[in-house]
Amino acid sequence: MSDKLIKKPVTGMKDMLPYEMEIRDYVEQTVREVYGSFGFEHIETPVVEHIENLCSNQGGENEKLIFKIMKRGEKLDIAGAKAENDLADSGLRYDLTLPLSRYYSNNSQSLVMPFKALQIGNVFRADRPQKGRFRQFKQCDIDIIGDPSNLAEIELVNATTTLLKRLGFGGFKVRINDRRLLKAMGAYAGFSEAELPEVFIILDKMDKIGMDGVESELKEAGYGADSVDKYIGLFKDYDDTAEGVRRIGDKLQGSVDAGVIDDLTEIFAAAAGAGSADFKLSFDPTLVRGMGYYTGTIFEIEMEEFNSSVAGGGRYDGMIGRFTGQDVPACGFSIGFERIITILLDKGFKVPESPKKTAFLIEKGMDGEKLALIMNEAKERRNNGETVLIARMAKNKKFQKENLEKSGYTEYKDFYRN
Amino acid sequence: MSDKLIKKPVTGMKDMLPYEMEIRDYVEQTVREVYGSFGFEHIETPVVEHIENLCSNQGGENEKLIFKIMKRGEKLDIAGAKAENDLADSGLRYDLTLPLSRYYSNNSQSLVMPFKALQIGNVFRADRPQKGRFRQFKQCDIDIIGDPSNLAEIELVNATTTLLKRLGFGGFKVRINDRRLLKAMGAYAGFSEAELPEVFIILDKMDKIGMDGVESELKEAGYGADSVDKYIGLFKDYDDTAEGVRRIGDKLQGSVDAGVIDDLTEIFAAAAGAGSADFKLSFDPTLVRGMGYYTGTIFEIEMEEFNSSVAGGGRYDGMIGRFTGQDVPACGFSIGFERIITILLDKGFKVPESPKKTAFLIEKGMDGEKLALIMNEAKERRNNGETVLIARMAKNKKFQKENLEKSGYTEYKDFYRN
Repeated sequence: MSDKLIKKPVTGMKDMLPYEMEIRDYVEQTVREVYGSFGFEHIETPVVEHIENLCSNQGGENEKLIFKIMKRGEKLDIAGAKAENDLADSGLRYDLTLPLSRYYSNNSQSLVMPFKALQIGNVFRADRPQKGRFRQFKQCDIDIIGDPSNLAEIELVNATTTLLKRLGFGGFKVRINDRRLLKAMGAYAGFSEAELPEVFIILDKMDKIGMDGVESELKEAGYGADSVDKYIGLFKDYDDTAEGVRRIGDKLQGSVDAGVIDDLTEIFAAAAGAGSADFKLSFDPTLVRGMGYYTGTIFEIEMEEFNSSVAGGGRYDGMIGRFTGQDVPACGFSIGFERIITILLDKGFKVPESPKKTAFLIEKGMDGEKLALIMNEAKERRNNGETVLIARMAKNKKFQKENLEKSGYTEYKDFYRN
Repeated sequence: MSDKLIKKPVTGMKDMLPYEMEIRDYVEQTVREVYGSFGFEHIETPVVEHIENLCSNQGGENEKLIFKIMKRGEKLDIAGAKAENDLADSGLRYDLTLPLSRYYSNNSQSLVMPFKALQIGNVFRADRPQKGRFRQFKQCDIDIIGDPSNLAEIELVNATTTLLKRLGFGGFKVRINDRRLLKAMGAYAGFSEAELPEVFIILDKMDKIGMDGVESELKEAGYGADSVDKYIGLFKDYDDTAEGVRRIGDKLQGSVDAGVIDDLTEIFAAAAGAGSADFKLSFDPTLVRGMGYYTGTIFEIEMEEFNSSVAGGGRYDGMIGRFTGQDVPACGFSIGFERIITILLDKGFKVPESPKKTAFLIEKGMDGEKLALIMNEAKERRNNGETVLIARMAKNKKFQKENLEKSGYTEYKDFYRN
């Protein structure tokens, strides 16, 4: 056949080279160890999900980016198809939260309560290709299902900062807010329930366009100056401690449930003792987070050296109810796995305690008996934790050794026929 | 919204519960350690592949089982589509060998020669659902690319039996044959080149229908009695040692290249010394293996306690040439990951050295200062390798503890408000 096959990966996806995989494996192993020590149990869901679940308004913008899988056999009716979803019965998951909610609904009888889940898995989004962003990428989530108390939030933040510290990072700032507080602030300013989604989308741009930008965008969108001024007033000179939460609570009296303020200040109190050495909790009334499914506290973690968020999450008490008809308290946290790998690669991170690597180079035509002796030496060394590569000696031995050095081989042993 | 979402995974796929994941993680970790000690480098390719590559006649029957992914946006022309592949631009990989060949072709300049690759990843086949067979399942492959010598075969068998031994298995029988020998035997019996694929499919049923069954199926298929008798004669009373290889070589003189016989006997000689304690190499002229891409030696590993194969592989020197225009020697081995997990689950396998698990049960309303002390105790224990679960104390504490016991918690500590 003369037609050559396609060498490049599909658009937006990536072949992982050995040097990157070594770091990825190390990070995954550390994730399992650290989160495991907090009692999170590793689970997995299929990467393929029902199209009905994927397109159920739980995924926000991500639902526009689904890789859809075609029906097969008789079920595929090309001539009769009107729309995309007539042809598809499933698709690749765009996150790990929706599949987890399905998983919990399907398996709750076999799970220990509260269920603490760890997931490490690929998700897929047909985003416009751009540098550093891929259409298949790894997410790493921890979730606590069935615990309504704020112990859940504290454990999630503690576990995540402990993990990031183990990976060599520090200076964590944990920004915290609450969706219920966001709603109360909107109501206090005079926005209607229906207007809130748009208001939040604009507020969410604070990082990029600043307070003035948010103010003018809100006014351009047609919201009254009174409401906008009252709203913006809430975000001026707020205090980022528990005291600041209380002060906003006082302002919002009548608009906000006292339980919301109690929940937030309790988290501050507990975190102050538990994690004070590891992270700074910082109240941020402007924190929105994109996903529509959040119902309570929301979080983002920033690290000193890097100015964007490396982890985030929140409470989504309503999603499991979409499967079972009954809401179940749920709270989750996702670390930016790919972002962390990129930072480690940029830093020139070396995996600690990787084994010594030796290459045995064997001349062509070695007889069986001699080869057996060589194999036995390799076996012994491997049993002692060494990496031993056995390869045929190349004609250009110098080039071969230079090449092996690049791959981390530091010792060579040449074996000749005679 | 009243429409409930779908709780079950998509047809033929599986949610992984914690008890199974613990074993899967342990096996994967052992795979990385053992294969790593042989110098195999862990790599990954995307699970999504170009539809052109997947449908290129490299996958045999698997090409009928592809999950196809729909084009997106303007590229999707439903009204103008005549056939399935007008609508699809990619699909889920059905094995790891084709993506590896693409990967090597795309990245060879960044790889050390010979390239020893380890892949652990999910593959997808829309097979008819049946017990114990899934549409998403894990494969674990090792491949050596760029080594034409039979050192490659020996290393693959050695690495695989070492791994299986580490997982507690023993009594390995490694059946070996060579595609070139299979062809020579066919030619010797008088079958034409064009008839060989069908003849091999029938021969491959030897395990199930026996020698007599193969004989009658060949005759039913219309092949002449002379050819069939001569063919079947080759498989009667053959000797499964290097001596047997030589004897068949003598019979086939004129039909078989002497290099084929030399290659096989050399592998016997080397394996005899190197692995005699770990496995028995057994020549089997009836071994076919399904995939059409094999070009030389083929292998299957059986274990004493289980009568079907748990690993297999062979040489496929032609596949990379489909991408680059130039053939490159390649040889690979795949372990039946899912089969091994099933066997371990059935045996009641326990992961060695899993950490001690303690649960801290905390009464509702614990104040921040006390909680901080509890968190610190948990932190210390976790740093010492213990698993510590922090959970709110349930009203029915007895039920809660029974439940935790099922998940492996052996110690409890109750914390009350006062």
